[in-house]
Amino acid sequence: MIDYPNILNEIYTNLNKQTNKGKVASYIPELSKVDINNFGIRLNLVDGPSYSVGNYNTPFSIQSISKVFTLLKAFSLLGNDLWKRVDVEPSGNPFNHLSLLELEHGIPRNPLINAGAIVIADILVSNLKDPKTGFLNFIRDLANDDSINFDESVARSEKETGFRNYAAANLLKSFKNLNNSVEEVLDFYFHQCSIQMSCKQLADAFYLFANHGTCQRNKSHATPSQIKRINAIMLTCGFYDEAGEFAFEVGLPGKSGVGGGIAALLPKKFTITTWSPGLNTKGNSLLGMQALEQFTTKTGLSIF
Amino acid sequence: MIDYPNILNEIYTNLNKQTNKGKVASYIPELSKVDINNFGIRLNLVDGPSYSVGNYNTPFSIQSISKVFTLLKAFSLLGNDLWKRVDVEPSGNPFNHLSLLELEHGIPRNPLINAGAIVIADILVSNLKDPKTGFLNFIRDLANDDSINFDESVARSEKETGFRNYAAANLLKSFKNLNNSVEEVLDFYFHQCSIQMSCKQLADAFYLFANHGTCQRNKSHATPSQIKRINAIMLTCGFYDEAGEFAFEVGLPGKSGVGGGIAALLPKKFTITTWSPGLNTKGNSLLGMQALEQFTTKTGLSIF
Amino acid sequence: MIDYPNILNEIYTNLNKQTNKGKVASYIPELSKVDINNFGIRLNLVDGPSYSVGNYNTPFSIQSISKVFTLLKAFSLLGNDLWKRVDVEPSGNPFNHLSLLELEHGIPRNPLINAGAIVIADILVSNLKDPKTGFLNFIRDLANDDSINFDESVARSEKETGFRNYAAANLLKSFKNLNNSVEEVLDFYFHQCSIQMSCKQLADAFYLFANHGTCQRNKSHATPSQIKRINAIMLTCGFYDEAGEFAFEVGLPGKSGVGGGIAALLPKKFTITTWSPGLNTKGNSLLGMQALEQFTTKTGLSIF
Amino acid sequence: MIDYPNILNEIYTNLNKQTNKGKVASYIPELSKVDINNFGIRLNLVDGPSYSVGNYNTPFSIQSISKVFTLLKAFSLLGNDLWKRVDVEPSGNPFNHLSLLELEHGIPRNPLINAGAIVIADILVSNLKDPKTGFLNFIRDLANDDSINFDESVARSEKETGFRNYAAANLLKSFKNLNNSVEEVLDFYFHQCSIQMSCKQLADAFYLFANHGTCQRNKSHATPSQIKRINAIMLTCGFYDEAGEFAFEVGLPGKSGVGGGIAALLPKKFTITTWSPGLNTKGNSLLGMQALEQFTTKTGLSIF
Repeated sequence: MIDYPNILNEIYTNLNKQTNKGKVASYIPELSKVDINNFGIRLNLVDGPSYSVGNYNTPFSIQSISKVFTLLKAFSLLGNDLWKRVDVEPSGNPFNHLSLLELEHGIPRNPLINAGAIVIADILVSNLKDPKTGFLNFIRDLANDDSINFDESVARSEKETGFRNYAAANLLKSFKNLNNSVEEVLDFYFHQCSIQMSCKQLADAFYLFANHGTCQRNKSHATPSQIKRINAIMLTCGFYDEAGEFAFEVGLPGKSGVGGGIAALLPKKFTITTWSPGLNTKGNSLLGMQALEQFTTKTGLSIF
Repeated sequence: MIDYPNILNEIYTNLNKQTNKGKVASYIPELSKVDINNFGIRLNLVDGPSYSVGNYNTPFSIQSISKVFTLLKAFSLLGNDLWKRVDVEPSGNPFNHLSLLELEHGIPRNPLINAGAIVIADILVSNLKDPKTGFLNFIRDLANDDSINFDESVARSEKETGFRNYAAANLLKSFKNLNNSVEEVLDFYFHQCSIQMSCKQLADAFYLFANHGTCQRNKSHATPSQIKRINAIMLTCGFYDEAGEFAFEVGLPGKSGVGGGIAALLPKKFTITTWSPGLNTKGNSLLGMQALEQFTTKTGLSIF
Repeated sequence: MIDYPNILNEIYTNLNKQTNKGKVASYIPELSKVDINNFGIRLNLVDGPSYSVGNYNTPFSIQSISKVFTLLKAFSLLGNDLWKRVDVEPSGNPFNHLSLLELEHGIPRNPLINAGAIVIADILVSNLKDPKTGFLNFIRDLANDDSINFDESVARSEKETGFRNYAAANLLKSFKNLNNSVEEVLDFYFHQCSIQMSCKQLADAFYLFANHGTCQRNKSHATPSQIKRINAIMLTCGFYDEAGEFAFEVGLPGKSGVGGGIAALLPKKFTITTWSPGLNTKGNSLLGMQALEQFTTKTGLSIF
Repeated sequence: MIDYPNILNEIYTNLNKQTNKGKVASYIPELSKVDINNFGIRLNLVDGPSYSVGNYNTPFSIQSISKVFTLLKAFSLLGNDLWKRVDVEPSGNPFNHLSLLELEHGIPRNPLINAGAIVIADILVSNLKDPKTGFLNFIRDLANDDSINFDESVARSEKETGFRNYAAANLLKSFKNLNNSVEEVLDFYFHQCSIQMSCKQLADAFYLFANHGTCQRNKSHATPSQIKRINAIMLTCGFYDEAGEFAFEVGLPGKSGVGGGIAALLPKKFTITTWSPGLNTKGNSLLGMQALEQFTTKTGLSIF
């Protein structure tokens, strides 16, 4: 028997003492103001109880973790037609994402890099009635919590400084891989990234990825085959340029965001979320990565 | 003695008969509607008369040829400080200009590729009072012709379809190499490209590049050293991905535009302009390139 | 209860009828002469019996599958020091592997692309007494079969036509990431690729990847943590430019070779190998990829 | 009237006092041992006398300057068929020459980068009887000096450390753009680079580039059109990643070598050579570049 509460406490206590907690994202004021000492973990067993430590109940900006939810929604809406507009290969090159987009004629490498997520956002803008509200309700549904919301000031700041996303969206538009206007798509995109969720809410919303597509309220949102494929994409592409490293060190499908959150899962077993706003040099939460590495080492639970 | 009228006539007559005239640019309706049978040449000797054949008096969209004029203005305003924001190396790679911009941290390779010209436009927006009018007057001054004007419908069409330029401008902005807003800079840029000039007007405006910086009305617009340098940039970077080929086949500093115009010169000797709207696969005027190649071969006049 | 024999038979029978079997590798005569109609599958359950269909007992050239064995040996010899000389990120870009090597200063993206495997070969040349014999004995040991051997004519042909591998090795040498001579390292590398094994032998040799590092003869060759990491590398990097696709469609760690073999596994459950010499356009066995996709779909067994 | 002797003396005296003389190439012992204080200039007027200062009579390793001579020979042998195997565009990208070669399917960007010069060497190995001797005699002929020779120890050192050239040659071979063996071609290539010449000998050998293809002994080695084209290539591609800068600052066709030599010319007017072994960060002679910049500024003589 694995003593989960003890393992979580041990990880939490040790990492909390660590002096190097990385650096809080500073490109917009809303993120830079977050206290670096926040640290929380939430574990939901698929067929069992949940466990938490630290600030697991404090909402934070989920940022890129939202890309998994938009992918889920778009995949369930379009099925495999989705893959005509975005590929599923790891991006490899950290330093020239726009160049890859040029070389590959406007087909983003995968749906979890920014350019790919912007294509997914375009699909949702085309297919959802009242897209922003519709998508927010989808998240609330997954997490079974109607208190989840956008942070409008984050969305506004992203819009004012998101020149690289504007560059990517315009490049996609030049390749005719964006059907709506750049402004409309990015407005949706900046809002999806601004959603505030706690570790608890995220772990609840991720439940369906560990449970063949059926959420905690027993509603199916995607086929088992679609869920298997999203999990595969998370494993190979979920951690920017550190995807290989994460698969190598941790061995779980997951997704990180620059707000310091990470959500991961072991199919049929558990979902686990961490939040610590300090990032490593690759843009992933420093303590979060360590916590997950220690968790799979101590429990022996990983897909490999 | 070189028999210029006869040489021009021979070139004009032979090329006019040629059935393959390339393809007219089609990305905006204003350019695509131009009659492919237009063909004109104008030659201004520095110390002698001028000669013309064909439609040398019909105005056309100068497009990228305008980049030489904005460079001239920005260079004369900022001097060598200009080179902190844009480099002078050939771009080499046709297929991934944005990627080069990424790899080189937002410093465009040279002022005659789009990204470089957008930086130059930003400089003029910062330094000219009433930038669009100011720049138009500068061109009128150089050509000694107040009838020259923007084509507002071309500028508007470029704006509506210029997603790649929006991508480049946003990428420059993300690297902090754009001081004004993307919208303001591109509004200026799309207007400069929309200027309508005839072969005659262009050859007159180019006069100062063959004459140490002093224009036909005997006014100095730049130092001889600055003119020498702009000529060097035209030779190495003036013809997109065909710059080496043009230097190799023709051997004159010059600049082409997708409107089908080419302006070139031999220092101290002549300026020559051609217009034929059909483009080769590299985006340069098909007949224009051939006309200039034949001209330097028949006259033996080139910088090499 | 899963009816493995029936599932294997069904897959075998259906795919065998398929007229498009891909194209046999043709860059060396030894590979091009192989009969495209060969098709075999072998399944070893970790805690149960084995099942086979077709030409599961015919030896073929394992080619790149050998890279997993050299990685295993080098990792067990050097431990984590290995990662100073080769990274663990997916390579992403199919078209410019050498360029990535240039941009990343001679550190190959991962040990399963050619450049990475050449660095691993260099490590074995430095660390094994009598490297070729030593490595062959290691493979025989893993598979528990002393009849396994090099195919000297394949090794010789690879050497005569392996200009791209010579280019990679010389580039690595220029970055000082090769300690032995190019000739010595490539002689080893071409030999490792020339090893002949059957589906049965490969499935036996892969057993330890599904069994925490302990082989069928109950001998431990690596720590569970090392095995977990090699499995992660296989999943993210094992199928050239199709790694993401394979994770997406199949969801098993594995490795393919241009000889038409594929070896894959589900930790704690099974190893599975296929052989069909016809390749798809990405260089992976066409029928093999389909067989494995069908196998995980029909059994519901995958890491996701 | 231009006072050449005075101008040369002034340049020589000023630059000789400069403390920063760059860094001598150190990748082989033969180059690293050269005294950094060597400095010579030679000027040959096409229709007039010659002038010299400093160590103009000391032989040094011409290195990449030899690429202009092999290009001349190959061009005169094959005519425009040459351009099927090598392009004439500037290379632009300093950091990934091999990658460009990959992306452009084995056609080097131009004959003055290493990959291009290796293709030219292959052509000479195919077309010259006794290639090394034949080529050496060609150089002796051009310079009218039979004392010119290879430096065998330089050639041997280049061979032992030239891993990047081996990488390029093997990559060319993989694209079938090398007809002879890698070893044979590189043996020729390393020898051509090892030729020792003084400023005087180089200025004499370059005479034909300023004189329509006719050498000092009044023998024609190429057509005026071929010479014009080689001059164009030198201008756009002769100075590695600094070609644009050199055209911009100096405005003469020319070629540099890592031995510290530079040879340049103004068609119909003069050839000029400099030697100072200290290099700038781009690999061109630091004092040599400055000397040529000052010479064209002081004399007002440049192609622009």
